[in-house]
Amino acid sequence: MFENLFWIGFVGAALALLFAVFQSRKVMKFSEGTDKMKTIAAAIRSGANAYLKRQYMGVLKIFIVVFIILLILAFNPWQGLLAKFVPFAFLTGGVYSGLAGFIGMKIATASNARTAQAAHEGLNRGLRVAFSSGSVMGFTVVGLGILDITVWIHILKYGFHADAATIGSTMVMFGMGASFMALFARVGGGIFTKAADVGADLVGKVEAGIPEDDPRNPAVIADNVGDNVGDVAGMGADLYESYVGSILASFALATSAGFGWNGIFMALAMGVVGIIAALIGTFFIRTGESTDQKTLLGALRRGTYIAAVLAAAAAVPLSYFIMGSVTSWVGVLVAILSGLVAGVLIGYFTEYYTSDTYKPTKDLAETSKTGPATIIIGGISLGMKSTCIPIIVVGAAILVSYFAAGGGMDPAKGLFGIGIAAVGMLSTLGITLATDAYGPVADNAGGIAEMSGLGEEVRERTDALDGLGNTTAATGKGFAIGSAALTALALLVSYIDLVKAKDPDILNLSITNPPLLVGIFLGAMLAFLFSALTMSAVGRAAQSIVVEVRRQFREIVGIMEGTGKPDYETCVDLCTRSAQKEMVLPSLLAIVVPVVVGLVLGVNGVVGLLAGVTITGFALAVFMSNAGGAWDNAKKYIEAGHLEGKGSENHKAAVVGDTVGDPFKDTSGPSLNILIKLVSTVSIVFSSLVIAFHLL
Amino acid sequence: MFENLFWIGFVGAALALLFAVFQSRKVMKFSEGTDKMKTIAAAIRSGANAYLKRQYMGVLKIFIVVFIILLILAFNPWQGLLAKFVPFAFLTGGVYSGLAGFIGMKIATASNARTAQAAHEGLNRGLRVAFSSGSVMGFTVVGLGILDITVWIHILKYGFHADAATIGSTMVMFGMGASFMALFARVGGGIFTKAADVGADLVGKVEAGIPEDDPRNPAVIADNVGDNVGDVAGMGADLYESYVGSILASFALATSAGFGWNGIFMALAMGVVGIIAALIGTFFIRTGESTDQKTLLGALRRGTYIAAVLAAAAAVPLSYFIMGSVTSWVGVLVAILSGLVAGVLIGYFTEYYTSDTYKPTKDLAETSKTGPATIIIGGISLGMKSTCIPIIVVGAAILVSYFAAGGGMDPAKGLFGIGIAAVGMLSTLGITLATDAYGPVADNAGGIAEMSGLGEEVRERTDALDGLGNTTAATGKGFAIGSAALTALALLVSYIDLVKAKDPDILNLSITNPPLLVGIFLGAMLAFLFSALTMSAVGRAAQSIVVEVRRQFREIVGIMEGTGKPDYETCVDLCTRSAQKEMVLPSLLAIVVPVVVGLVLGVNGVVGLLAGVTITGFALAVFMSNAGGAWDNAKKYIEAGHLEGKGSENHKAAVVGDTVGDPFKDTSGPSLNILIKLVSTVSIVFSSLVIAFHLL
Repeated sequence: MFENLFWIGFVGAALALLFAVFQSRKVMKFSEGTDKMKTIAAAIRSGANAYLKRQYMGVLKIFIVVFIILLILAFNPWQGLLAKFVPFAFLTGGVYSGLAGFIGMKIATASNARTAQAAHEGLNRGLRVAFSSGSVMGFTVVGLGILDITVWIHILKYGFHADAATIGSTMVMFGMGASFMALFARVGGGIFTKAADVGADLVGKVEAGIPEDDPRNPAVIADNVGDNVGDVAGMGADLYESYVGSILASFALATSAGFGWNGIFMALAMGVVGIIAALIGTFFIRTGESTDQKTLLGALRRGTYIAAVLAAAAAVPLSYFIMGSVTSWVGVLVAILSGLVAGVLIGYFTEYYTSDTYKPTKDLAETSKTGPATIIIGGISLGMKSTCIPIIVVGAAILVSYFAAGGGMDPAKGLFGIGIAAVGMLSTLGITLATDAYGPVADNAGGIAEMSGLGEEVRERTDALDGLGNTTAATGKGFAIGSAALTALALLVSYIDLVKAKDPDILNLSITNPPLLVGIFLGAMLAFLFSALTMSAVGRAAQSIVVEVRRQFREIVGIMEGTGKPDYETCVDLCTRSAQKEMVLPSLLAIVVPVVVGLVLGVNGVVGLLAGVTITGFALAVFMSNAGGAWDNAKKYIEAGHLEGKGSENHKAAVVGDTVGDPFKDTSGPSLNILIKLVSTVSIVFSSLVIAFHLL
Repeated sequence: MFENLFWIGFVGAALALLFAVFQSRKVMKFSEGTDKMKTIAAAIRSGANAYLKRQYMGVLKIFIVVFIILLILAFNPWQGLLAKFVPFAFLTGGVYSGLAGFIGMKIATASNARTAQAAHEGLNRGLRVAFSSGSVMGFTVVGLGILDITVWIHILKYGFHADAATIGSTMVMFGMGASFMALFARVGGGIFTKAADVGADLVGKVEAGIPEDDPRNPAVIADNVGDNVGDVAGMGADLYESYVGSILASFALATSAGFGWNGIFMALAMGVVGIIAALIGTFFIRTGESTDQKTLLGALRRGTYIAAVLAAAAAVPLSYFIMGSVTSWVGVLVAILSGLVAGVLIGYFTEYYTSDTYKPTKDLAETSKTGPATIIIGGISLGMKSTCIPIIVVGAAILVSYFAAGGGMDPAKGLFGIGIAAVGMLSTLGITLATDAYGPVADNAGGIAEMSGLGEEVRERTDALDGLGNTTAATGKGFAIGSAALTALALLVSYIDLVKAKDPDILNLSITNPPLLVGIFLGAMLAFLFSALTMSAVGRAAQSIVVEVRRQFREIVGIMEGTGKPDYETCVDLCTRSAQKEMVLPSLLAIVVPVVVGLVLGVNGVVGLLAGVTITGFALAVFMSNAGGAWDNAKKYIEAGHLEGKGSENHKAAVVGDTVGDPFKDTSGPSLNILIKLVSTVSIVFSSLVIAFHLL
């Protein structure tokens, strides 16, 4: 009955993409403000474009190499028939993901000056421009994601007459292109943004004593560019991958649970319904003229909560009609709800640990009184403590979705429950991502307002919008990590299913099977090593910016007096080159390790690796993101006049914390999301190779 | 044939303990130096005694409570017959472990002034006193450990006619007392030592600008006391537990592999042979009068390497005669060797990452040039990177010992291989621990030399000895972590065996079994949470010392001029009270979590918990210990005159790194060792309860 309804995927995609076009038109109607603002915005835009162009050119080469490898692999006898589509799906995944990032960044760099100008006219206007810009990103991601999946379903189903089982086991391999692109976007963007930020702060704020976003700082444009390429394009690619990954994993899990077309259709339909719910939610976001953070946050929250409730409500008939004939529909519904609720809870507790309206960050700010060492210790301790609730929430979601979906009787059904929980969590991504991508736009708007000398009042409004952006960025990160963990688990289970279908005898999933156990150890190691590499990459890249900024301060006459013009382009270019160079090693690691572990330890070792990297990587990502977020906000709390305020010794200590937190929260932490998913998708794609050749 | 040879355990214990007595007599013959030195040494001694007394009184109460709980549990119908010994073995384990810590601390506090005085007379003399003191600790630990085990074997075997299988499955529960005592010693001692250290540094070095170990600092005695209660007593209890745990786990694994008395005897005999090898090794430790670190380190290394080679050589006939009749003796031999080699390798690479003679720490020191933030980022990155090799080494040891011992054909045999590898790694503990416990003595000696104003030359020698102590402390920590991981794995497998013997049907060890999977998540979380709690405990305790030291500087007239006497006792007392108070929560966590997880998620959840906490805890412990060690040595490297030396901005940045590293390397990192073992032993003891009552 449902197998001929897959066209609704096109409807969902069209709705999302049309809404994105509509929103971007709305944004473009606003004025970009004064000439000075236009000039600054143009500089940021051209820097971001230059970066993305260089990044895509670099990635293109790697895509070609991997495409050829996949092509060679695909036509080997030990590959399934439809595996020959994998190389092509790898390309479409990469292109769509890159496109989502590109569009998101385009609109973000077009909106920053417009937001500043709109904030000049009123707070609500500012919020509307920034949020509309964010929603372009959000809906582009979900629209392209659903489009990619729907197109492939139609090609395989109608073009090649594939049945449900084949689609499930083939399409789960289609996520690697998106993962791949996401990795480069996140890691490269993360290195760029933090190298620029740390470099600008270390020389500008600390050494020269000029304020943040001061136009005299040669790295200030690079810093603003960084917000766009890291926080917008990187975040977009990351969540595109989670979104697509969770749906594809559910296809595979539906197949092995024996749900056929019903299960596949359920995952897709939930995505479409989520788009509509998110779309409706956006209409509830509006605020008055109060700069109070709680009011503003309430405005954004209202939209996301309404979307979640609508998606939950729509899941009831969906589960009933689609799944009622093949399994307990209530179980499927509960699984979806557990994912939705888990996403909301993780977002909330991320905010609790990182916002200065709550106790943990306030207490952290207090530790600045005894100097930088104690605020570092305090932040690390806070971050580690904050792993507790997200892990319990994800754990509970796993258990609830598994057992509710019938895992107690039939494990395959339970595992489908975990997959559909991930889909549930991500179903309203359109609006969640919109509130998240809103942040960097507001941040940039603040920078432009500062650089172009807009009045005190405007700064106050953009600061209010930016402060809100920090909170939504934190909750967005929590959500991204939580969904990555659940998606990675769904992918892990699909991997096992895939192997089982090919050669059930080689599986020994007992935790006492040494290759598997050692695999878990290696997975934990991979998470730590990857974090170390991304962090030291930021360190090295920032070092080169520091040297360059110092050089400009020394050599450009009148730069400090505002009569000499700093050379912004060189800093942008330096960041771009550093990021491109530094992202190679960590990225390679994510691709090579699962293949090597597979060839040495076999499929059981890979299963261990996936579990280890997912679990330790999840904990590590939460730790790093939250510690970084809390340091950032502790600093902002002091800057707001608490604890002797700006310029005090306490503030200096807090700046050290913030600087340490920068690569934590914007490079290593978020990159771990991609790592755990990419390792899974790489393992899935190379599973046949590993089954055919392995040592243990 | 071997079942009546268990008396050799008494021979081994006697040898070790007599050697300890002999060494302590040797130490006591040395002079304690001038009256001033005696006074200072007496102050440290009385502080350490006061602390330990309070700690034991506090622990006694908890022991009584747990003893009663165990007693109630032991006489329940669902417990095995011999389980009624568990409560009593819990007591003996605690007493022996406490005794080992007590004796080690006694001799350490008796040797510090003697080492300073001996160094006054010559470097080699100084080394001999300090090392002899360390060897008292080392051999007391192994002597008491073997004694405890041998006594219980005789009681059960001859008193209650228990067969091999019963002894294996019962005695594995006997390790909890030692674990328990070790936890309090490590956590309490770790909090004490770092609260005093951080407190003394923050006010003395940073605020008042007086040097380290300056007698005007009111926290200076507490700082020296801390070295003894944390690094000596805590480390001793930690390794006592690993030592006993690995042997007891091997008993259980030998039983389930069907090796009967032979397997049990093999583990015990390896311990005895290791004692003799270690004993011989100590005679090769001597040095000339060069203060060159490499020469000194070579002197210590020679002893440990000779002991390892001797133990390896002795393992050949042992494996052949004892195991030859029941399995492939070569396999058992290879397993033992893999453990021995892994221990040496982990020690070596810990040194590589933390000693300033190698590139990583030198590079880290360079990052101080751009301030505290970059050295923190650099240290965290270094620590994370350093997890790589230890994990690969442990992974390789697991695979080699498992497959060599025949795990490919019979998993039970392979798992015994992992157990005996742990025994192999720890067999020469007598001398490894001696080189480790030597460190705090040399450190204290340096402090006493400073405080009592001994000449420049003596300081130089004690500095050389202390520098060496830092390296051995680092390698010792690496070794402690590596052995803890291997022991914890052996305990994990014993746990599974134990459950299997009672109710095989409830086990589902597949990694896709959600309770097990969620258990791994919770294990990872427990490691992070525990680290967070111990770290913030240090922060709070240090804060109270800071307040007190500031008060004394303010209120005591003439304290800065040296005419007023600081009130050392109050600081010692404050540290004692803080440590006792702060250790409760993290300790409780380690005991309550495994029981609660068991009651909710059942035995499979517990298995996941154990795997998760072992693996993530291991990575986290290596990360924290090595980052801390590297920061410490980067600071020392700058103090030695590199990078503008003491007092420069670089040095200030490095001091921040060192202060952050203090709780990393001396509290949280080492405490994780205990955590991973204690969670295992608690799970083992409460396994019957969990089998009888569980939710999932």
